Amino acid sequence: MDLGERLLNGDRRACARLITMLENNDNEAIDILRDLYKYSGNAYVIGVTGAPGSGKSTLTDKIVKEFRKKGKKIGILAIDPTSPFTGGAILGDRIRMNDLTLDKNVFIRSMGTRGALGGMSRATWGAVKVLDIFGMDYIFIETVGVGQSEIDIVKIADTVLMVMVPNLGDDIQAIKAGIMEIADVFAINKSDLEGADRTKLEIEMNLDLSEDKEYRPPVVKVSARQNKGIDDLIDKLMEHRRYLEDTGKIIERRKKNIKLEIMKLIEEELMSLIMDKAFRENLIEDLANDVIAKETDPYTAKERLIDLIKE
Amino acid sequence: MDLGERLLNGDRRACARLITMLENNDNEAIDILRDLYKYSGNAYVIGVTGAPGSGKSTLTDKIVKEFRKKGKKIGILAIDPTSPFTGGAILGDRIRMNDLTLDKNVFIRSMGTRGALGGMSRATWGAVKVLDIFGMDYIFIETVGVGQSEIDIVKIADTVLMVMVPNLGDDIQAIKAGIMEIADVFAINKSDLEGADRTKLEIEMNLDLSEDKEYRPPVVKVSARQNKGIDDLIDKLMEHRRYLEDTGKIIERRKKNIKLEIMKLIEEELMSLIMDKAFRENLIEDLANDVIAKETDPYTAKERLIDLIKE
Repeated sequence: MDLGERLLNGDRRACARLITMLENNDNEAIDILRDLYKYSGNAYVIGVTGAPGSGKSTLTDKIVKEFRKKGKKIGILAIDPTSPFTGGAILGDRIRMNDLTLDKNVFIRSMGTRGALGGMSRATWGAVKVLDIFGMDYIFIETVGVGQSEIDIVKIADTVLMVMVPNLGDDIQAIKAGIMEIADVFAINKSDLEGADRTKLEIEMNLDLSEDKEYRPPVVKVSARQNKGIDDLIDKLMEHRRYLEDTGKIIERRKKNIKLEIMKLIEEELMSLIMDKAFRENLIEDLANDVIAKETDPYTAKERLIDLIKE
Repeated sequence: MDLGERLLNGDRRACARLITMLENNDNEAIDILRDLYKYSGNAYVIGVTGAPGSGKSTLTDKIVKEFRKKGKKIGILAIDPTSPFTGGAILGDRIRMNDLTLDKNVFIRSMGTRGALGGMSRATWGAVKVLDIFGMDYIFIETVGVGQSEIDIVKIADTVLMVMVPNLGDDIQAIKAGIMEIADVFAINKSDLEGADRTKLEIEMNLDLSEDKEYRPPVVKVSARQNKGIDDLIDKLMEHRRYLEDTGKIIERRKKNIKLEIMKLIEEELMSLIMDKAFRENLIEDLANDVIAKETDPYTAKERLIDLIKE
């Protein structure tokens, strides 16, 4: 049996192998996903994002445990910054040493972020398809909720859960607002800490400014460590799912996500073509020398490089 | 006098106007920068980055005050997440209500991050050139140090100052490691807090793994609010500058940055061309419908769109 058939038959090792191939930008994996794409679309994807230190992983684990009680099969993709020193994923080997990792119906994968030109969104979205075809009912994508590429990665979800914590200072409030737009449900984690109500109020005030009057993201206070509010949070996630499905907006949303994915795929492909050409023939080196010598400027250099590539 | 001449003559309003034009992607500003590029290269650029809430702005202000005592002219570009609700920059109107804003030899500008396809790096790097040509001795770029695009923006600096704080949890350690590579100097801010020594030790241990044996980034404990350690930090920043200048590595570094800038400019231009074509002719809409209907898949759709655009 080839990898694709094995994936369809629920072979965990085929699943893991395909995700690795996607991380390595292996075209064979893409071809397999092309063939199997028609079997995708059954999983419901939940993106979990939030400030550094907000406890996203712990909260995800608590949610997943409840889903497991209902017999749901779960995939978790934790997007993990890659260490520039060791080259390995940083969190990968130390998080999630808990009972979920032993559960045959839970597939957890840390994916490392790679070089400057991204490729992470392509690999992540590919991995979502793999887990979907593999037969998962729910797929969680966790990312640190700051930075445009990180936001893009999680945007692909059907429901986006934004995890906040009380009192993270002014800077974090700004970031929060920068991604409030993509949140469908807010969780205030560590809500036993002082300031949780103020944080809730701030979010609600921001939501008051929103133009979408049809659906208003709920704000739920939880404590992942103390296992408080998890049921309530799950209710809100499911309410959002029902809202999308009952109104038919799920199609609209998935279509928007597909457009985003196609555009990102194009971006990544074109850039890798250009990088290849620019660096292999040393075109970029010559141009940078001219700019350093003030014989040209970066804007003109850009145009010259585009012309050279067109040839 | 045209805008370019006014900028060369030190006209603050011309400087502000040009930066606004860059934010609005106005080609006239780019043309002016092309003409004046030969006058750039005199300013020394310091990137300041760090986790949300690390106190980057306060620390920058303290450093700038010391530089002002030596008569240096300073530009500050604070990259500011844009609120999706109000459309405006979030921090812009509330930070820096201090004496620096009244100083004629300090130019402070908050720049908002824009739509999904970026453009922020182009605008920021353009603004650096404007401030350079305007005659600033030092230009500070502040960004939240998480997210690939944010890291790219600050990478363009001659010296990158990474601001850390004690005890930000496991998540933040990961992010820290993800950008440790680009830091030339580390400041541990709020170092009166417990855990500062542990944070310092962790950074030092990470640095031990680094392969660059020639220059080792120093780690300085400071407290911006209490005005402690600022002189020491400035010494380290200046030592890095001297290191680059004495070894001639400054040229190498600026060349690397110019390459990054050219590639980013190309990326932004190509993507805006493709977006324009894909959305104007509804190509992307048709393809997304086909993907939703499982008549095709995102990978094949990407290729079809590239083919359509090539025509």
